[in-house]
Amino acid sequence: MSSRISIENAQWEAAAHPPPYIHKVGKPPKKNFVEEFTATMRETLFPDDPLRQFKDQPWSRKLFLGIQTVFPILHWGRHYSLGMFKGDLIAGLTIASLCIPQDIGYAKLAGLDPQYGLYSSFVPPLIYAFMGSSRDIAIGPVAVVSLLLATLLENEIDSKKNPHDYRRLAFTATFFAGIIQFALGFFRLGFLIDFLSHAAIVGFMAGAAVTIALQQLKSLLGVKNFTKNTDIVSVLRSWNVQTILIGISFLAFLLLAKYIGKKNKKLFWIPAIAPLISIIVSTFFVYITRADKKGVGIVRHINQGVNPSSVNEIFFAGSYLSKGFRIGLVAGMVALTEAVAIGRTFAAMGDYSIDGNKEMIALGTMNIIGSMTSCYIATGSFSRSAVNFMAGCNTAVSNIVMSGVVLLTLELITPLFKYTPNAILASIVISAVAGLFDFQAALLIWKIDKFDFIACIGAFFGVVFISVEIGLLIAVSISFAKILLQVMRPRTVVLGRLPRSTVYRNISHYPEAAKVPGVLIVRVDSAIYFSNSNYIKERILRWLADEEEHLKENHQPGIQFLIVEMSPVTDIDTSGIQALEELHRSLEKREVQLVLANPGPVVIDKLHASKLADLLGEEHIFLTVADAVTICAPKNEEA
Amino acid sequence: MSSRISIENAQWEAAAHPPPYIHKVGKPPKKNFVEEFTATMRETLFPDDPLRQFKDQPWSRKLFLGIQTVFPILHWGRHYSLGMFKGDLIAGLTIASLCIPQDIGYAKLAGLDPQYGLYSSFVPPLIYAFMGSSRDIAIGPVAVVSLLLATLLENEIDSKKNPHDYRRLAFTATFFAGIIQFALGFFRLGFLIDFLSHAAIVGFMAGAAVTIALQQLKSLLGVKNFTKNTDIVSVLRSWNVQTILIGISFLAFLLLAKYIGKKNKKLFWIPAIAPLISIIVSTFFVYITRADKKGVGIVRHINQGVNPSSVNEIFFAGSYLSKGFRIGLVAGMVALTEAVAIGRTFAAMGDYSIDGNKEMIALGTMNIIGSMTSCYIATGSFSRSAVNFMAGCNTAVSNIVMSGVVLLTLELITPLFKYTPNAILASIVISAVAGLFDFQAALLIWKIDKFDFIACIGAFFGVVFISVEIGLLIAVSISFAKILLQVMRPRTVVLGRLPRSTVYRNISHYPEAAKVPGVLIVRVDSAIYFSNSNYIKERILRWLADEEEHLKENHQPGIQFLIVEMSPVTDIDTSGIQALEELHRSLEKREVQLVLANPGPVVIDKLHASKLADLLGEEHIFLTVADAVTICAPKNEEA
Repeated sequence: MSSRISIENAQWEAAAHPPPYIHKVGKPPKKNFVEEFTATMRETLFPDDPLRQFKDQPWSRKLFLGIQTVFPILHWGRHYSLGMFKGDLIAGLTIASLCIPQDIGYAKLAGLDPQYGLYSSFVPPLIYAFMGSSRDIAIGPVAVVSLLLATLLENEIDSKKNPHDYRRLAFTATFFAGIIQFALGFFRLGFLIDFLSHAAIVGFMAGAAVTIALQQLKSLLGVKNFTKNTDIVSVLRSWNVQTILIGISFLAFLLLAKYIGKKNKKLFWIPAIAPLISIIVSTFFVYITRADKKGVGIVRHINQGVNPSSVNEIFFAGSYLSKGFRIGLVAGMVALTEAVAIGRTFAAMGDYSIDGNKEMIALGTMNIIGSMTSCYIATGSFSRSAVNFMAGCNTAVSNIVMSGVVLLTLELITPLFKYTPNAILASIVISAVAGLFDFQAALLIWKIDKFDFIACIGAFFGVVFISVEIGLLIAVSISFAKILLQVMRPRTVVLGRLPRSTVYRNISHYPEAAKVPGVLIVRVDSAIYFSNSNYIKERILRWLADEEEHLKENHQPGIQFLIVEMSPVTDIDTSGIQALEELHRSLEKREVQLVLANPGPVVIDKLHASKLADLLGEEHIFLTVADAVTICAPKNEEA
Repeated sequence: MSSRISIENAQWEAAAHPPPYIHKVGKPPKKNFVEEFTATMRETLFPDDPLRQFKDQPWSRKLFLGIQTVFPILHWGRHYSLGMFKGDLIAGLTIASLCIPQDIGYAKLAGLDPQYGLYSSFVPPLIYAFMGSSRDIAIGPVAVVSLLLATLLENEIDSKKNPHDYRRLAFTATFFAGIIQFALGFFRLGFLIDFLSHAAIVGFMAGAAVTIALQQLKSLLGVKNFTKNTDIVSVLRSWNVQTILIGISFLAFLLLAKYIGKKNKKLFWIPAIAPLISIIVSTFFVYITRADKKGVGIVRHINQGVNPSSVNEIFFAGSYLSKGFRIGLVAGMVALTEAVAIGRTFAAMGDYSIDGNKEMIALGTMNIIGSMTSCYIATGSFSRSAVNFMAGCNTAVSNIVMSGVVLLTLELITPLFKYTPNAILASIVISAVAGLFDFQAALLIWKIDKFDFIACIGAFFGVVFISVEIGLLIAVSISFAKILLQVMRPRTVVLGRLPRSTVYRNISHYPEAAKVPGVLIVRVDSAIYFSNSNYIKERILRWLADEEEHLKENHQPGIQFLIVEMSPVTDIDTSGIQALEELHRSLEKREVQLVLANPGPVVIDKLHASKLADLLGEEHIFLTVADAVTICAPKNEEA
């Protein structure tokens, strides 16, 4: 340090400490165990303070508010106007035109007959409209959950050989998915879905998109699934060409429509109605040319009429019960993750807030009732929600409109789908899932956080090269590994004083920060828990050993005080206290005094409860690092 | 605020900021991905920098150091002296006298014949002495692992009906326990055992102690296990009285010896040799009186001679392979946890350091070789290690001495154990496990951390009322729940300025800290990750809403600046960046400016990588809260 700076520093010190005023470390107001426990539980389960509105209300009002909480439609419905309905009507019609073709395709993806997709776009959105709190979400079957469900179901039952049991297991899984979603919301455990990281979801979704696209491409290029009714090689060849031609040309049309919609946000309705147009045109074309006789695969049959009951189809006993539960758990959680992500995204855009737990209750109820009315797992669809938003929806009424259109479709026009070529459905699914492959998001993840990127590509490759389940498992594992790494190996940094200040900062971040002779200042950037207490102790000792070695090499006097800056240490447990005690004893043998700076209220409490404060001496616990340095090494500091 | 304090504050401000000098937030030195990744991996897997000694050494020296790392005996053996041997000899003889009776009792606890306990005290300590780095640990079979092993093995094979397969599965489990311990150490994954919290271990151990004591008491009071050779009710009655008499009186003797040892640390050798004396006296007594003919259960037979090979006994194929692996995994991890805890405890007392991963390699090797020489899982024993330490051991040579004594016992005096009454073994086991019930530790845990206490009693009741496995599962689950809670619901606190300073502290801890008008200062006490990003965002918004409501009630002007103090935020991921961006947008709509104070190097990097720094404006990122307040609300501050 040059003498010029030293003088400045000394002046600064003199100015900053007219009398060296040392703050006392406060003892926080005492809380008893019940208060403490209640506060923790409240913060864990009710961080959004949902009961606030019930406070100081008469009982009748509380009851009304309670009902309104379960059915938000009672709240927003009172202010509903014709102007709002106009927006909802247009949005509802738009998403209906998008969902009908997608539903049929997704049902096939899930290994079910086409009408089950339409059923799932009728009952669930209706129920959601009454119970959900997102204005923009569009409810129905989605590609990823359909694929996941099919994969999990096929592991148990062959959909070709035993379609009835397969369907029954699908309803069972849907039922339990609903129960689990409901339970998570009801017991306010919704935070559990936060354990799937954004990055892992991006990778998982992209992987699922690629898998679905490849699978559909196989269909589109005319392979097995479409040939089961014919076995003459020449015929097979002849219709392949037609199927391919139809499929490829409509796929090109759909992707072009998508591109237009992307380039000009005002033309969002073009990709939204393109699928329906494709269906109409191609169905008409097949009907006119009777291309089906030349081997073009068609839908052939789709049940007319509203959802039949499926209460008796659900396996409430037997070995399929537990299998249904397991499948429901996995598919239900993925469905939930998607719906909550959509809800949050659009809530942030519209600057309103949604209660994740309430959403889960709504989604759970809708799937439970869905499972009894021949629906399979429904959730929020990214693409349709975006269209809903852009088409100007105002409330969940757009879902009711969509639901109504689907009802009309089921009642009136399903027979017309008879001649719809399967290749078109494949094209529609491919163009729909193309949006799930979010290259931009992956690029951003790469830029911001490399570890996140590993989670992202891990999930992606897991899905593409192994299976959806393995991909999901990888995604969850990597997410968890990251959390565990965080608590296991918290950061510890050495602090130095910034010139012309009493501010102490990480010396590897601020190279101009100067170490105080005879004092080593280490900041621990985490709560000290059993999972890291030993590491923190040993890491601090290693910082000390490194520093002393360095000082010895330079023939400088050794360290007398080790100041641990505890500001970021939010909590400490018994293992942590033990580690600090061991640290103190180790330092004692090296004739170094352990000094704590700014322990928080919880830590202070525990230092006293464990008598560690007495062992260290209260005079070695300071409010700030600056105070600690002033008292511990006053001469060194001014040197 | 009274005008007196205001004036003081203003003077203070004036003094502290002769010119208002604002530090810039530094951009940390850029690291590329490989450097970053290597640094993370090094800190995760090699936090103790074990390769430091190899640096800048010629190859031959590196080879020698490498061998020495695997066999620390080559290091300390060179300085070994006769004086040290004296201590080791006495300690070794003492722990041998303690281990021989315990071994026989523990083998019975594990459902194996008595000689297997002795075998496990011969080979493993010998191997540990060459490879281990703890000076004080005493190796051999231990009560808890024996109980756990028996419980897990009995689930698969009935030890009464099929003792041979039972034994084979025990060796298989021991083999895999060794493999797993070795692998954890070799791949430097030893930190995984840190996931079992100290509190959970205390509860688990106490529960296991109670279970073992009750089980042995049942034997001691003469129930089934000992009656299998006789079926006449009168005989059963007659010997029960004798057995009970012998058992209870020796138990009283053993507990008295323990009490004496506890009261006067110098008399530690009394409880250490009391079990052997009990065995000798009671065996002699039974031999003289032929009490066995009157129905007192005796050991009857114990194989003479050194460990036979058991390589061919291990199941290397078939369904028992995977079962053995599973049992080995659970029992091996528990054994490891115990050994590492002991190693660390005594290393802290002797102020030397042990490398957890190297220890695991030593323990793993010893169990692998043990499984091939008729040993079952051995690990460090708390009670014997304490005796070893107090008897003045200097190195692992005391384990070699003990091993030698056990060898002599096996070769020469096992026939003498024929008349040893089983009730004595029960008494010895009971008095040994009494030490595992650590009431003081539980009390301390209750005082320091209530959540830890829940983990502790959860594990305890799980073991006592359900089973060892369930108790262990509860212990692990609660430990994990605590970790997850920590990352899921990090603390956010509102800061205020301490009078006469520029120090900002938690206002609920320091009620004298004053809020700055028009400014809300919130500190986030955790890395911002996907698991908590949404919570943090919403919690900050709720702090703001609460504050604005409060201000409105008091007719004060609203908040213009929201300063987020980021010092404790060690890292942020893509979800965290997204959450901050959403927070910024939400605040914009409320006409509140988001200001960041003291983001760390990693966070700064990512703020720039994601362009969020540009969005916020670099002028809204400060080094300290004080700087932020000075610039954002200069008038308010001096008001």
